[in-house]
Amino acid sequence: MNVHSHPAAPKAGGRIEAGALDQLFIGARTHNGWQDRPVSDDLLREALDIAKMGPTSANTSPLRVVFVRSQAAKERLKPALAPGNVDKTMAAPVTAILGYDLKFYDHLPRLFPHADARAWFAGNEAFAADTAYKNGTLQVGYFILALRALGLDTGPMTGFDAGKVDAEFFAGETVKSNILVNIGYGDPAKLFPRSPRFSFEEIARIV
Amino acid sequence: MNVHSHPAAPKAGGRIEAGALDQLFIGARTHNGWQDRPVSDDLLREALDIAKMGPTSANTSPLRVVFVRSQAAKERLKPALAPGNVDKTMAAPVTAILGYDLKFYDHLPRLFPHADARAWFAGNEAFAADTAYKNGTLQVGYFILALRALGLDTGPMTGFDAGKVDAEFFAGETVKSNILVNIGYGDPAKLFPRSPRFSFEEIARIV
Repeated sequence: MNVHSHPAAPKAGGRIEAGALDQLFIGARTHNGWQDRPVSDDLLREALDIAKMGPTSANTSPLRVVFVRSQAAKERLKPALAPGNVDKTMAAPVTAILGYDLKFYDHLPRLFPHADARAWFAGNEAFAADTAYKNGTLQVGYFILALRALGLDTGPMTGFDAGKVDAEFFAGETVKSNILVNIGYGDPAKLFPRSPRFSFEEIARIV
Repeated sequence: MNVHSHPAAPKAGGRIEAGALDQLFIGARTHNGWQDRPVSDDLLREALDIAKMGPTSANTSPLRVVFVRSQAAKERLKPALAPGNVDKTMAAPVTAILGYDLKFYDHLPRLFPHADARAWFAGNEAFAADTAYKNGTLQVGYFILALRALGLDTGPMTGFDAGKVDAEFFAGETVKSNILVNIGYGDPAKLFPRSPRFSFEEIARIV
């Protein structure tokens, strides 16, 4: 079960190098324009294989993904997009539809074999839906950073008609769309200025 | 406004080194036991300063954090914890209460000055609450990975009574608690076996 070996001794607790921190967080930006440079299926697969290792409640892992790459599939997505998101999405090499499975709990006998976790959710649809949404959204955060870790740029979007996306891409399934992410190699000339962030004191305290 | 300079030329699109990928995702684990090794306030501040650079819808940035470090504050948190989370939380050097501010939109004239984004949310409380929850949860994902990037270990938990936490730590505020994260240097001897993950084909498709 322990698919990755671990050292018996405590690790040093060192930080990752400054260049990686910059690539993941500090200098990374949400992109609106894209270089004419393809993104391989292998890289998309690797990003998801990395992101899925991030923690979720009871290993519920509700994230589900449709990578929209073909022109035909992009045309199916287009009517659901907010007007300001159409051009950049149609131009992106790939757009990931990130959703969450409301029936994630049917997989828990395999994903969380230590306890009867399925019973915590089956028949409690409100709790199950909230758990799917919360953990599926956490996994979107992991996925954005996994893409960046592989050298890709991202353009996450919440401005779209989820009902239309669900009808077009998840008909007959128990998956709900959550966030879209354009994926490619960004064009720095089309970046907007960096928006400000809060100071630590404005949003946090130590008690 | 552009607080970080960017090269004019497209970047190389390289991946971060394997050791960093391992520390962030592949080999990183949710910890249940903690070394007797302190975590400085400076490191907590730095983790949040890194995490806050991750993207949110219209830069809404709803995440709010209480770092529970003192024994007195831990005792205030204790009655809200699920039984299985008590011992490891009381033993952790720090427990972060990660919440989201329902009134995040009052800050948008500063955080998103390009448009009247406050008007999208004010008076539309259901949309505002969903936006706060979605983006505050995305920011928890960034925060967990920022802590790991600095060499810290994490133990995220959703098993707690949010009403009790809100009454104790956010009384009179517009903040709702979302996820708790124990923070420290983990004891590898107390790790549970790694739980399985889905294959790519089970959760994703390319269209």
